[in-house]
Amino acid sequence: MNFIPKSIQRAIEAFSKLPGIGSKSAERLVFYLLKKPTADLQDLGQSILQLKEGLHYCDVCKNLATETRCEICKNEQRSARVICVVEDSLDLIALEKTGSFKGLYHVLHGIISPINGVGPDELTIVDLIERVKQGQVEEVIFALNPSMEGEATAAYITRYISPYSVKITRIARGIPVGGHLEYADNQTLKRAMEGRGEY
Amino acid sequence: MNFIPKSIQRAIEAFSKLPGIGSKSAERLVFYLLKKPTADLQDLGQSILQLKEGLHYCDVCKNLATETRCEICKNEQRSARVICVVEDSLDLIALEKTGSFKGLYHVLHGIISPINGVGPDELTIVDLIERVKQGQVEEVIFALNPSMEGEATAAYITRYISPYSVKITRIARGIPVGGHLEYADNQTLKRAMEGRGEY
Repeated sequence: MNFIPKSIQRAIEAFSKLPGIGSKSAERLVFYLLKKPTADLQDLGQSILQLKEGLHYCDVCKNLATETRCEICKNEQRSARVICVVEDSLDLIALEKTGSFKGLYHVLHGIISPINGVGPDELTIVDLIERVKQGQVEEVIFALNPSMEGEATAAYITRYISPYSVKITRIARGIPVGGHLEYADNQTLKRAMEGRGEY
Repeated sequence: MNFIPKSIQRAIEAFSKLPGIGSKSAERLVFYLLKKPTADLQDLGQSILQLKEGLHYCDVCKNLATETRCEICKNEQRSARVICVVEDSLDLIALEKTGSFKGLYHVLHGIISPINGVGPDELTIVDLIERVKQGQVEEVIFALNPSMEGEATAAYITRYISPYSVKITRIARGIPVGGHLEYADNQTLKRAMEGRGEY
């Protein structure tokens, strides 16, 4: 590949390290960028270099923030009595976009997964227990992915917070809107039936 | 979306401008980068900023190069008597990877496409005609995509180079290796039959 200029090779390599981008896609992205004005390259390059600048975790919910408290925790319109527990910030964003939740969050930054070597101490579980301990919290909602790891993490946390007379719930598992019963797996159908609500 | 720090929003926007990357993929890429060490971010960011540095077009074939001549045109092992005409550098890379072509290239940097407002003057066709005029070239191979635009571009160039007693060929159109006859379209099958070779 010595017929490709070094700067192009280097960019292709850097792009192909990103998840979901193979070497062919990386090539296409780089040659797309080569056709763009330098200002566009500046824009993308600088945004990556400055991505982590001034970022830290919110003191309360551990979400990414630019100050000691994130925008959600600072918002007095939101109820500090309900905490929604999510695996990472992407899940928080997905829930926030629905606009249907008016409480606060707690970002675990991962999930208990012995296979991947992630134990409870790698996560922000201690901070969550501390928040519940303070007594203001009335409900903890688990919005974790419906997987083995998600279940295990919820079970682990429940063991530590149940003594504090707090309501513990989980988001519903069932047929996705627009989905088809006939294509749903057994477990999903079973959960959908168990979690049925009044019409 | 004001609950997402500005630097993250900016990076998501910049990524989602890339072809094939929607807003969801952009979010996922940015949050992936946030978990990576700063050195990795530096690597990607700098490679984008420095992508165009020191790059210009090869004097001969118009491929991207770091000097006045590209590595392929400088290589004396390659025959200057055969020129393979490609639409862009990505096609050149794809052909180079096969290792089956030992001549030189000519990169058009596009294809004649009236719908997209690309005429012959936007491309490097004049330079190609000039190369043929010099008399050293014995064969011009069109390796253009088998589309209306590809055909039109080849026809246009042929009109100008045919007076110079040069052999004009095109790469074969037919069934791709591993493909199935039953799924091939009419045109492809027709071309495959016409272009049949001895067994």
